[in-house]
Amino acid sequence: MRLRNIPNADSIIKESTYVIDENNIKDIIENKKTNLEIGIGKGDFIIESAIKYKDINFIGIEKYATVLVKVTEKLKTKKIDNLKIVNMDAENVDKLFEKSIDTLYLNFSDPWPKKRHSKRRLTSEVFLEKYEKIFKKDAHIIMKTDNRKLFEYSLMKFSEFNYIIKDICLDLYSEDTKDNIPTEYEMKFKKLGPIYKVEVYKNLHK
Amino acid sequence: MRLRNIPNADSIIKESTYVIDENNIKDIIENKKTNLEIGIGKGDFIIESAIKYKDINFIGIEKYATVLVKVTEKLKTKKIDNLKIVNMDAENVDKLFEKSIDTLYLNFSDPWPKKRHSKRRLTSEVFLEKYEKIFKKDAHIIMKTDNRKLFEYSLMKFSEFNYIIKDICLDLYSEDTKDNIPTEYEMKFKKLGPIYKVEVYKNLHK
Repeated sequence: MRLRNIPNADSIIKESTYVIDENNIKDIIENKKTNLEIGIGKGDFIIESAIKYKDINFIGIEKYATVLVKVTEKLKTKKIDNLKIVNMDAENVDKLFEKSIDTLYLNFSDPWPKKRHSKRRLTSEVFLEKYEKIFKKDAHIIMKTDNRKLFEYSLMKFSEFNYIIKDICLDLYSEDTKDNIPTEYEMKFKKLGPIYKVEVYKNLHK
Repeated sequence: MRLRNIPNADSIIKESTYVIDENNIKDIIENKKTNLEIGIGKGDFIIESAIKYKDINFIGIEKYATVLVKVTEKLKTKKIDNLKIVNMDAENVDKLFEKSIDTLYLNFSDPWPKKRHSKRRLTSEVFLEKYEKIFKKDAHIIMKTDNRKLFEYSLMKFSEFNYIIKDICLDLYSEDTKDNIPTEYEMKFKKLGPIYKVEVYKNLHK
């Protein structure tokens, strides 16, 4: 996402009750099912998910405070108890969410198309190793993207890490999408080509 | 493929030196690298492969003698020592090719779209179990199809059987295809939508 800088973004987002400090994460997770989205962008997916599934905690992380300003504005008139947002880098996901997460969502992540940047992709071995530490029990990742190369790369990496494909769709909008919660990016780009989706899992405690 | 019956197809194909009897397979395989295609259809893929890679044995199997008549006609004017064809059902692949095959090709296999026929798909658990017996050492399968549902199903089944994806392409003709050997079906259908390709492997002797 291209970013327009917003002065004082940090202090603006801190006013929102949805935005929590890294230190308060453990209090939120408790014994409730907790799903995490890395890179929430404009937040439509995680907001709609939290509204739809009230019995699940939804935590969204986003690197850029500037992006979160828009999310906190959207949330001002809403009261969603099971949604929290953390302004943090995905790099630290294993430190903050150790054995805490049930399902991880990766929606339209940055494809980092250049080979020399491949380790920055959210499905690179660097991140897949971190994710193994965040899941309560079994690993469970649901990914959507319109980027064919990123999707192909991710399928290879998932298989390398012995994930099993529970479900896969290579053209989401050719199917019945009534249960799909789209991101704002998805609504825009679904007209230009196929949206890919995969759900993978892995038993971490055999 | 829809079939037009050819009377005496059995005796016509037996005249071809390329068509070997099931009993003569072991003689062909010897100590040479041996690749197998299940369902060769009109044969373009396996004929071109054998011409291109002279150091590898290519064996093609096809259920229907009627289909093979066209293949043997094509081969009449050619002299390709490393190509053999067997008129047999894929069901028996594990009995005839035990520990014999290096690479298995599945090109544009019948998708068997109905769920109750799913076990007939050449990537169902029924066939994946048979394939584990045919490979000399590591399992290595290269699959192409234009059928999205069959491809999604196959990716799930490969992952269930712990295959690792070595390479995958969700739109073959958007890439450089100079090394690709197309089937006759592929040439016809590549204009109508993406051709999917995946290469998977599995270490069978850990």
